[in-house]
Amino acid sequence: MISYQEALEIISQNTFKQTVEKVSLSEATNRVLAEDIKADRALPPYDRVTMDGIAISYSVYADGQRQFPIAEIIGAGMPQKSFNTPKQCVQIMTGAIMPNGLDTIIRYEDLTITDEVATINVETVKEKQNIHFKASDKAAGDVVLTKGTKLSAAELIVAAAVGCAKLPVYKLPKAAIITTGDELVAINETPLEHQVRRSSNYGVESLLNQWGIETEQFHLADDKALMLKEIEQILKDFDVLVMTGGVSRGKFDYLPEVLEELGVTKHFHKVKQRPGKPFWFGTSDAGKQVFALPGNPVSSFVCASIYIRYWLNTSLNQKPNTTYVKLQQDLDFPPPLTYFLECKLTSTKQGELVAETFKGNGSGDFANLTQADGFITLPDNQSAFKAGEVYPYIPFR
Amino acid sequence: MISYQEALEIISQNTFKQTVEKVSLSEATNRVLAEDIKADRALPPYDRVTMDGIAISYSVYADGQRQFPIAEIIGAGMPQKSFNTPKQCVQIMTGAIMPNGLDTIIRYEDLTITDEVATINVETVKEKQNIHFKASDKAAGDVVLTKGTKLSAAELIVAAAVGCAKLPVYKLPKAAIITTGDELVAINETPLEHQVRRSSNYGVESLLNQWGIETEQFHLADDKALMLKEIEQILKDFDVLVMTGGVSRGKFDYLPEVLEELGVTKHFHKVKQRPGKPFWFGTSDAGKQVFALPGNPVSSFVCASIYIRYWLNTSLNQKPNTTYVKLQQDLDFPPPLTYFLECKLTSTKQGELVAETFKGNGSGDFANLTQADGFITLPDNQSAFKAGEVYPYIPFR
Repeated sequence: MISYQEALEIISQNTFKQTVEKVSLSEATNRVLAEDIKADRALPPYDRVTMDGIAISYSVYADGQRQFPIAEIIGAGMPQKSFNTPKQCVQIMTGAIMPNGLDTIIRYEDLTITDEVATINVETVKEKQNIHFKASDKAAGDVVLTKGTKLSAAELIVAAAVGCAKLPVYKLPKAAIITTGDELVAINETPLEHQVRRSSNYGVESLLNQWGIETEQFHLADDKALMLKEIEQILKDFDVLVMTGGVSRGKFDYLPEVLEELGVTKHFHKVKQRPGKPFWFGTSDAGKQVFALPGNPVSSFVCASIYIRYWLNTSLNQKPNTTYVKLQQDLDFPPPLTYFLECKLTSTKQGELVAETFKGNGSGDFANLTQADGFITLPDNQSAFKAGEVYPYIPFR
Repeated sequence: MISYQEALEIISQNTFKQTVEKVSLSEATNRVLAEDIKADRALPPYDRVTMDGIAISYSVYADGQRQFPIAEIIGAGMPQKSFNTPKQCVQIMTGAIMPNGLDTIIRYEDLTITDEVATINVETVKEKQNIHFKASDKAAGDVVLTKGTKLSAAELIVAAAVGCAKLPVYKLPKAAIITTGDELVAINETPLEHQVRRSSNYGVESLLNQWGIETEQFHLADDKALMLKEIEQILKDFDVLVMTGGVSRGKFDYLPEVLEELGVTKHFHKVKQRPGKPFWFGTSDAGKQVFALPGNPVSSFVCASIYIRYWLNTSLNQKPNTTYVKLQQDLDFPPPLTYFLECKLTSTKQGELVAETFKGNGSGDFANLTQADGFITLPDNQSAFKAGEVYPYIPFR
């Protein structure tokens, strides 16, 4: 049985292949940029007025003039003008291009305008104030967004400004989510006494969809011949397989066998952790990954939250920062297993993150998950954990 | 001019009306539940085996028997069986219903099986171990998900288990995002020297879409008559209007006028904050909200991140926890304005969140936003801020 860290290491050596697609700006949020994006022109592209008010010649102001006749009004979107009457001013609006011959903006708040004459009421005018100068942020040709950047709303503003209506991003894998287990019926069915509805798959689906991965659901009976046939096809049609159930030591847990017969190489089966110990991971000849997660809801949810996210991030060269949180209460966990414990974070007014932990009725107790927002990761080489100690946290909300 | 806190207070009094729709589980992530969800049956619905192994009668074990002939194999999904041969055992699988007449599970790891006889190799067996008892999590009829809950992947597992293929959630408003400003051209156009591409709207769109709000984009010329006509129609077709630009003191900033002529009541214009001071907020006779944000990208982005999110959360009765973060460096900001400063968080191994702040080239400098992950909120009644002090943080990633 391998450790949590060893499992991560093996997964990081079995990432999906990076391929590139172009998506529109509206579809690009949370995708990872596959090429550098350069400014097609300077940012800002011209000396841009940043306040509504008047444009003057600073040297005239410095010589003592405080009243400026208004020659004209210039709005944003008007071509650049030139003035050689420095004792006059122009009214000018935010976003406009600075006229030639004038060099300083006084905002309306610092003016009185009467009969087409602006009077400056302050003595704090600085030369060239309220202008965002051409190329002061970026020069034409500068890289504005770097390959490998995860695109948030902020990056889309930059991409739009430099004219990228479509962005090159890494393709995301298409996942099949496969449930197994003859006790499982569909959510819209009424289960018999000994049956339960499929539920683990919806937790996994929601996580994957939130990470941008398209999913399709399958349910397979605990019948080896049927499994062989169906999984063979699914392996052709999808980039990654996520299975829940069928990997424990049970007599009807055919999955590991079936996968190996289909040429999926096992990288590990079982990880020294709780919950989620029976986790199985392999790759097909065609380089597709198979995550065969334990069937119970909390176990599959923990494994997806941790390992599939890690696989996705590693495949896309993303290294999300670890969040460290303080334990709120003392805990004992003697088994030599990494313990992923449900917890709820509070941000204190001291700037700390504190984790209140919940111990449910074992790994089948998914009702308890709804109190939590993530898992605190308690290492396997310790059995007592004290309030105030700090451990890594893995969010699921 | 009102304060940031006053602006929030006014917005909280102008929420959208809660209406309910049903969505499928696959569409329900991040939606807010509009009714309590009850368990249609107990959770678990039967005494559920939690380990693969054998089921025995504990009293026989307690009397000293360690070898149990195997009578049968029971898998998950088989109807409940009864046994009156307590000196025998059954092999039984995780997820199966506990048979009548047996009461304790010994996992395979603690057994040797030879010639259809299981030998128990441990002396640590506890009565009724490895069974998740019927109704130990929830009884039939118990509320499993409370009205008002924001649905994460975890809640979907619970909803699936109790048979909710469709979930009642609050409808989300449909938003029109409207840009104004004659200097603005479309992203796929090549701007003339005095023009720039529309970009603020893409930041706002990405934020709203991430919060589940559907958006449509419009661009209006700085022409009052045209604005009147188009906004009148948009007010009919959409639930909320988000505008960028046209609310400063400029000569061509017709929006406040146009909105008031269309019967949109102004609740405030200008907030004591930087960036984003010219922010205008109103509601129409029909009770629709209009967020008229300043046109420059950083200002509109700050205002959307803060106020539109707050409006959405308040409308849905969500009170997200405030995140408090420590300033990494000293700062001075003398103006009596709330200062929303771009920053990047680091989680330290002491369990603290530390904010590194970035001072850009003013509110037009959106290139700097890409370094940050949110805004630290520095209050308006202070002008010096010291490293190590703690302030609220507003994320945008």
